[in-house]
Amino acid sequence: MTGDLLIRSVRPWPNSLDVPPVDILCSGGLVASIGATLDAPPGVPVADGKGGVLLPSFTDAHAHLDSTRLDLPFRPHSAGTGLNELIENDRRNWRTAERGVAERATHTLGRTIASGATLVRSHAQVDVDSGLEKLEGVLAAREAHSGRASVEVVAFPQCGILREKGTADLLEAALRAGADLVGGLDPAGYDRDPARHLDVVFDLADKHQRGVDVHLHDAGSLGAFQVELICERAAALDMRGQVTISHAFALSTVDADRQRELVDLLAEHDVAVTTVAPGAREPLPLRQLRWAGVRLGLGQDGIRDYWSPYGNGDMLDRTWQLAYRNGFRQDALIEMCVDIATRGGASVMGHTHGLTEGAPANLVVVPGDTVTAAVMDRAPRTLVVHGGNVVAAGGELL
Amino acid sequence: MTGDLLIRSVRPWPNSLDVPPVDILCSGGLVASIGATLDAPPGVPVADGKGGVLLPSFTDAHAHLDSTRLDLPFRPHSAGTGLNELIENDRRNWRTAERGVAERATHTLGRTIASGATLVRSHAQVDVDSGLEKLEGVLAAREAHSGRASVEVVAFPQCGILREKGTADLLEAALRAGADLVGGLDPAGYDRDPARHLDVVFDLADKHQRGVDVHLHDAGSLGAFQVELICERAAALDMRGQVTISHAFALSTVDADRQRELVDLLAEHDVAVTTVAPGAREPLPLRQLRWAGVRLGLGQDGIRDYWSPYGNGDMLDRTWQLAYRNGFRQDALIEMCVDIATRGGASVMGHTHGLTEGAPANLVVVPGDTVTAAVMDRAPRTLVVHGGNVVAAGGELL
Repeated sequence: MTGDLLIRSVRPWPNSLDVPPVDILCSGGLVASIGATLDAPPGVPVADGKGGVLLPSFTDAHAHLDSTRLDLPFRPHSAGTGLNELIENDRRNWRTAERGVAERATHTLGRTIASGATLVRSHAQVDVDSGLEKLEGVLAAREAHSGRASVEVVAFPQCGILREKGTADLLEAALRAGADLVGGLDPAGYDRDPARHLDVVFDLADKHQRGVDVHLHDAGSLGAFQVELICERAAALDMRGQVTISHAFALSTVDADRQRELVDLLAEHDVAVTTVAPGAREPLPLRQLRWAGVRLGLGQDGIRDYWSPYGNGDMLDRTWQLAYRNGFRQDALIEMCVDIATRGGASVMGHTHGLTEGAPANLVVVPGDTVTAAVMDRAPRTLVVHGGNVVAAGGELL
Repeated sequence: MTGDLLIRSVRPWPNSLDVPPVDILCSGGLVASIGATLDAPPGVPVADGKGGVLLPSFTDAHAHLDSTRLDLPFRPHSAGTGLNELIENDRRNWRTAERGVAERATHTLGRTIASGATLVRSHAQVDVDSGLEKLEGVLAAREAHSGRASVEVVAFPQCGILREKGTADLLEAALRAGADLVGGLDPAGYDRDPARHLDVVFDLADKHQRGVDVHLHDAGSLGAFQVELICERAAALDMRGQVTISHAFALSTVDADRQRELVDLLAEHDVAVTTVAPGAREPLPLRQLRWAGVRLGLGQDGIRDYWSPYGNGDMLDRTWQLAYRNGFRQDALIEMCVDIATRGGASVMGHTHGLTEGAPANLVVVPGDTVTAAVMDRAPRTLVVHGGNVVAAGGELL
């Protein structure tokens, strides 16, 4: 039966080299039992974990699968500086890609799954230039990998909502076409009218009963103000647990008192945060967010596209980057990054995720002496399991 | 004859996908000719570059080969915070490593070479606890890989010079035992007497006619003051081109005017700088240093040791980190990082390094559409050539 599986010889996190590996029996897509040596019931397939570290599967909580050029011929970065130029550069180039959106998104989602992420939230650009074409490509990628990963799609107004007539209608059409959440983009800094931008976003979310995920690069007091505007709307519409702020640079560009106020506000309204471990921007206050109970996830962002040459589909590599960028050396802090990249992102997406009996059997086995060693080694994943089925092995999609 | 080699099918940097690959003939350890299709003289071995990108070999301008635990069983990070605790933690643990210094250093130097670095400057800790044991281990690693890489060794007073009686004598003994340069460590912040610390370092360098490479983590005006002290001594002893400041956090922690003064001072006295692309510290002003003509190299720093779990012997990975941490997206900036990691470090070590006819045939072939794509992909190196001999292929040491 699908979703039944015996995984032999893994060391579930937390683990130690001193503790012998165990077996994991999955049944009906759930973790059924964990034991020293389990027998496979008749007909149940067996997969060899080879003594690797067992983690909940990675969650890519913030991807842009629609723009990826991964494994296509490399194109030099052609954008000037600034958000507007990045947007325009993408518009100038995306139609000339050697493959269509669906094929590119499907390929990169496959690489993402093969690297151990089976929960994915992807934004899909919706604008007057591309209409719903990018969204449909991401939905096709989700369909192509159904059974291998759980994918949420955000209707993302990458070019603003108010700057170009017809965008709000396209966002609504996107929700009707299968998008799960309504996105937003710098309501003040880019779209120039924060209250009105957010009213469009939250009205659509309320009308269609969907979640919200807003890109907020605006920093300092302007960004902080918009964090408040978002929390106010989450409260007014009773959307606790349904709203995410992506990037949230405001949190790391205000003083410590203001930062504490914002973190408390996010916790109070259960508004989640995602980061992409940016290299040059100030890191988010990861520990403060977690201490306050704010749901916090990690994402790949763009994956080798017209925005940036970085990204490779590998959330373990991204986890390494989060640890490196924060200067973490202690194992507990590096494991916190793993927790953000697995359970944290799953909580942003509203999924139960873990290694306990009864939890969905969404798992990844990574070679390594310990969890921290596995992050440092970034070796190909031994096994990736979703819903109790092996979906990738040895770094390759099955 | 050793040092004779024909490399088929490579695309020398700068390159383009549109330009067909060329062949490189090496003779007597030098690049003899570059041409569309060259014939191998009788008896000259042929290596296949498989159409990859050809770069000068990487230069690891700042390593700590003596402390590495790469590929030994992983040990959780056991140090508290602060430089003193890191030093003491290493002292508590290093003698219990499963392998001796020479074996560990030899292994990690081999991994470094296999990843494409054939010019290496390694610090070796000299202190009253370890005496010359760590230095001798690094010298043994150099000997084990002679012919595969050119290695400089710095007699490095990791525990200060003035804090423990006998250290200065050990440094002098280290120079007699084969160390190439005299090191130093935070003359003010750690050793508490900057003028006296630097006088010991420069007196030894002058007496034995060796170079100097000082670790300077001290930031802000205290660090800037010590940059001045170092430049003053370089001038007084006529040591232009013989002095390096490692880390040099002062440069990124003073205001723009002061930063310009310091950069100009380094250029005036031809004092070089190395960085290790630290994740959490403010990056050095890379462009300003290069515009001013300051020699600038990149290093691995510690490689999975009691100081930090990071590092894997791969200077291409480190180059990626330098680009990522600086937020570089433009190909020209990412290629600048490659230049720092190859020619830049070589200039710090006083080596001629490049892809021109007559230059030493120290080369690496990396799979990738372009140089930037090669940095992003970080694929195993196709070929590593040192002195016209293939020393590694397919990511494995020969």
